[in-house]
Amino acid sequence: MSERTEGSSTKNWRTSVAGQVDGKTVVRGYPLDDLIGNVSFAEGIYLVLKGELPSEKERKMMEAMLVACIDHGIGPPSVVSARTVYSGGNPLNAAVAAGVLTLGDHHGGAIEQCAKIYQEQLGADVTDVTAHARQVVEDFSKKKKRFPGYGHKLYKRDPRTLRILDLAKEYGFSGRYVEFAVAIQDALEAQSQKPLPLNVDGMIAAVISEMGLSWKTGKGIFIIGRIPGLVAHIVEEWNREKPFRRLEEGSYEYDGPGVRPVPKKS
Amino acid sequence: MSERTEGSSTKNWRTSVAGQVDGKTVVRGYPLDDLIGNVSFAEGIYLVLKGELPSEKERKMMEAMLVACIDHGIGPPSVVSARTVYSGGNPLNAAVAAGVLTLGDHHGGAIEQCAKIYQEQLGADVTDVTAHARQVVEDFSKKKKRFPGYGHKLYKRDPRTLRILDLAKEYGFSGRYVEFAVAIQDALEAQSQKPLPLNVDGMIAAVISEMGLSWKTGKGIFIIGRIPGLVAHIVEEWNREKPFRRLEEGSYEYDGPGVRPVPKKS
Amino acid sequence: MSERTEGSSTKNWRTSVAGQVDGKTVVRGYPLDDLIGNVSFAEGIYLVLKGELPSEKERKMMEAMLVACIDHGIGPPSVVSARTVYSGGNPLNAAVAAGVLTLGDHHGGAIEQCAKIYQEQLGADVTDVTAHARQVVEDFSKKKKRFPGYGHKLYKRDPRTLRILDLAKEYGFSGRYVEFAVAIQDALEAQSQKPLPLNVDGMIAAVISEMGLSWKTGKGIFIIGRIPGLVAHIVEEWNREKPFRRLEEGSYEYDGPGVRPVPKKS
Amino acid sequence: MSERTEGSSTKNWRTSVAGQVDGKTVVRGYPLDDLIGNVSFAEGIYLVLKGELPSEKERKMMEAMLVACIDHGIGPPSVVSARTVYSGGNPLNAAVAAGVLTLGDHHGGAIEQCAKIYQEQLGADVTDVTAHARQVVEDFSKKKKRFPGYGHKLYKRDPRTLRILDLAKEYGFSGRYVEFAVAIQDALEAQSQKPLPLNVDGMIAAVISEMGLSWKTGKGIFIIGRIPGLVAHIVEEWNREKPFRRLEEGSYEYDGPGVRPVPKKS
Repeated sequence: MSERTEGSSTKNWRTSVAGQVDGKTVVRGYPLDDLIGNVSFAEGIYLVLKGELPSEKERKMMEAMLVACIDHGIGPPSVVSARTVYSGGNPLNAAVAAGVLTLGDHHGGAIEQCAKIYQEQLGADVTDVTAHARQVVEDFSKKKKRFPGYGHKLYKRDPRTLRILDLAKEYGFSGRYVEFAVAIQDALEAQSQKPLPLNVDGMIAAVISEMGLSWKTGKGIFIIGRIPGLVAHIVEEWNREKPFRRLEEGSYEYDGPGVRPVPKKS
Repeated sequence: MSERTEGSSTKNWRTSVAGQVDGKTVVRGYPLDDLIGNVSFAEGIYLVLKGELPSEKERKMMEAMLVACIDHGIGPPSVVSARTVYSGGNPLNAAVAAGVLTLGDHHGGAIEQCAKIYQEQLGADVTDVTAHARQVVEDFSKKKKRFPGYGHKLYKRDPRTLRILDLAKEYGFSGRYVEFAVAIQDALEAQSQKPLPLNVDGMIAAVISEMGLSWKTGKGIFIIGRIPGLVAHIVEEWNREKPFRRLEEGSYEYDGPGVRPVPKKS
Repeated sequence: MSERTEGSSTKNWRTSVAGQVDGKTVVRGYPLDDLIGNVSFAEGIYLVLKGELPSEKERKMMEAMLVACIDHGIGPPSVVSARTVYSGGNPLNAAVAAGVLTLGDHHGGAIEQCAKIYQEQLGADVTDVTAHARQVVEDFSKKKKRFPGYGHKLYKRDPRTLRILDLAKEYGFSGRYVEFAVAIQDALEAQSQKPLPLNVDGMIAAVISEMGLSWKTGKGIFIIGRIPGLVAHIVEEWNREKPFRRLEEGSYEYDGPGVRPVPKKS
Repeated sequence: MSERTEGSSTKNWRTSVAGQVDGKTVVRGYPLDDLIGNVSFAEGIYLVLKGELPSEKERKMMEAMLVACIDHGIGPPSVVSARTVYSGGNPLNAAVAAGVLTLGDHHGGAIEQCAKIYQEQLGADVTDVTAHARQVVEDFSKKKKRFPGYGHKLYKRDPRTLRILDLAKEYGFSGRYVEFAVAIQDALEAQSQKPLPLNVDGMIAAVISEMGLSWKTGKGIFIIGRIPGLVAHIVEEWNREKPFRRLEEGSYEYDGPGVRPVPKKS
């Protein structure tokens, strides 16, 4: 019998994620051997992030969001840096790390930023969500703060957003946060008089908020979802390309000072 | 209609993983919007790595192997470096990258190393798998090469290996590679007269070989499986710990030259 | 003759740091071949960062600051993560990268943070530097912002600060910024009634401001200075230690939920 | 008085690079406070790597080699990945780390590879260096091993090599290893009947061997030398470019399977 009190350790290195208890590895209390074969990978992901196993609807929502992040082709900067690092003669894990390093504030960062706003602004005491959304947009506007998670280069409405929104309705995650996210879209568009659709980052931010996942997991969920694509790109680089990607001749330029002599020292 | 010939591009930057076709994002040909909600995350992972969607049995096998990698507590070096980097005042993605950087030849590396040996040594022409295993072990022994994927600190038989082996039998992936992997265990133990059980890395190596996944994806599968644990640890560090983890006083030592004066320059 | 106009390129990839002109590599206009053997490494560093070669006094100041950063032993988190990554079976450059990744806001970050404050707060129009320092400290206090670059665990006055201050006086870099930095120390100590000495990070921040180096180079100067120590530690790890540093048994703890069964799916 | 025995520690975390002795930070025994202002940065680098301060000639040689590595423009992969990571919305240190990650076997790696060969092949017992060089080239040829450190895209003789060779002669580091390196060039060219000049990587490899620096420091010396350029590029990216570098429209291509429907599950 385990007499452990959760979160009780005073050691410098301590965790409630996973560990060894009586010689068995447990993850959030569940024996790892029993999880293998009995839960899907997405269930395991939910478990390590949230501390509990998901319901069937939570599992389906999680699978959908992770699949939404899986890959977007060779153009994004994370793929460029991952493949470039591999081409320098480095192991696959170093190339994956370079891809993950690229996933900063401007690359998948809107999930975290947006979920933070939703979770901080939509307190339990808010009764009129639409009115509150208008108020928040006005406040941001006054403080000249940009609202992350809205806007798309091509679409008036982002098809991936609509897809996830449909699933959120189907699985029962279209509650206050989703209402708030859509109301902010409407308020932003009313204010700017141009399309500013809730994009896929903003949509995921709203859904993880519905699911009770902290905004602090937002970037992590994007990273977990995107890693498989990065791995596939690096294996493709390995199989298909020659080493040492440098910029192509003619695609770059030096525009610093003209040639000058090194001054002689007296 | 798409008249693309697969693998035909002569551009410097080209991929068959994912891209935009007629304004839609496709992953290995499948529209991403249609994958969302229709395939599990593990199916998506299999798709980006292998190029095709898995069968139901392949999906289940994949889920099980990824769950097996998900986390092993705070002790492993990848968690130490990830949490240490976060504690230096860095964003979550930099900490994840540090964790991934740690996953080198000695940390999850045996899957790739072992799958490489299985796939290179077990040609289609081998008829007597057991005899061939004995031969390979003898060859390695003569060349003084260590065999990766065998041995365990605690167990005579690794329980996770046995769990995955059972599932491999259930799902139909207990073929020649698994037979070869077990025969190598027996040959190694016969040779050394001590327990050298096929460990979880070696077991996964054998199963991905059964599934037709290249050994080049071995490290990647481990990384994909382990990232969720790394993310959970970093979020925990964020929520629970103070910045700047340095070694504890008394746990380290300087044993270089004693104090000496800097020589004066003439 | 070069007819280039500096900073004129409209290409996506462009630089004024270095490039090829008429088949020769130039750094900020100087032929690299002529720099080799004619300038010290610290002069080269100053050149790439500032765009011009330093005077003799600037060179000496630069050498001193870089040496001040070179290493502080095995305790700091950057060394822990660098050596840990190497121990996972990775190449030296991956281990160096992990060390650099650790150098975030809480680890060498005060140089940049502090130089930013000095350079933004001490406009050319400020006549009474001491009075202005008092004002800035009061403003920070009202806004509850912590002042980076001040305070030391052991010393009332930091010996490295005093050493660099002496050299700054000797080489002619003890002007308004240094006066401002010391005046802030006095104002902070008057306010808090306890020692809050200008530390080595704050001192370097003041000196680079004197030298006309942007605060944006502050973290970079620290990284450049600390890399040699990181390399030396990794080579030592390579020569002296066994692979796979994990936390020592007994030094860590799992305090998550007690063992519980995985629920059966209906 | 210090009664320490060098290299004596049995702790898990131990170093002879630097540490605290009697409350003072020492680097290889020298008090850090006394090094500041009394040694150049290159002398400090030599000290942490080799354990001893350099002679004046060693210092000059070191300065020259580090300057030779400082930057080569925006084209190399390390700059591409460093600037790309910064553009994703990440801190400067993460971008530097990505640059360092790129410096693998194919990017600055020849110094280490080549110095390893020189130091392993040129034993103290070799009397006829030229004959031995011919023998080594023949052995490599038989084993179909490529010789790193030789060959140049443009030059029959690399001007940077010639510059460093001149300095090596001037400072007294043109001994057996340099003789061996040049003899290998001659043997390779005799064998292949085309120019295969000793390049700057191979030249530095020979000189560090002369100076008694282990081949294990070869990659580290290149990294130390190149970091200032990486920092300068990242600060330039920060000052001059907009976020989120993705591949330019039209410069990349998806050549995977054509669009296909996601199969319905039964």
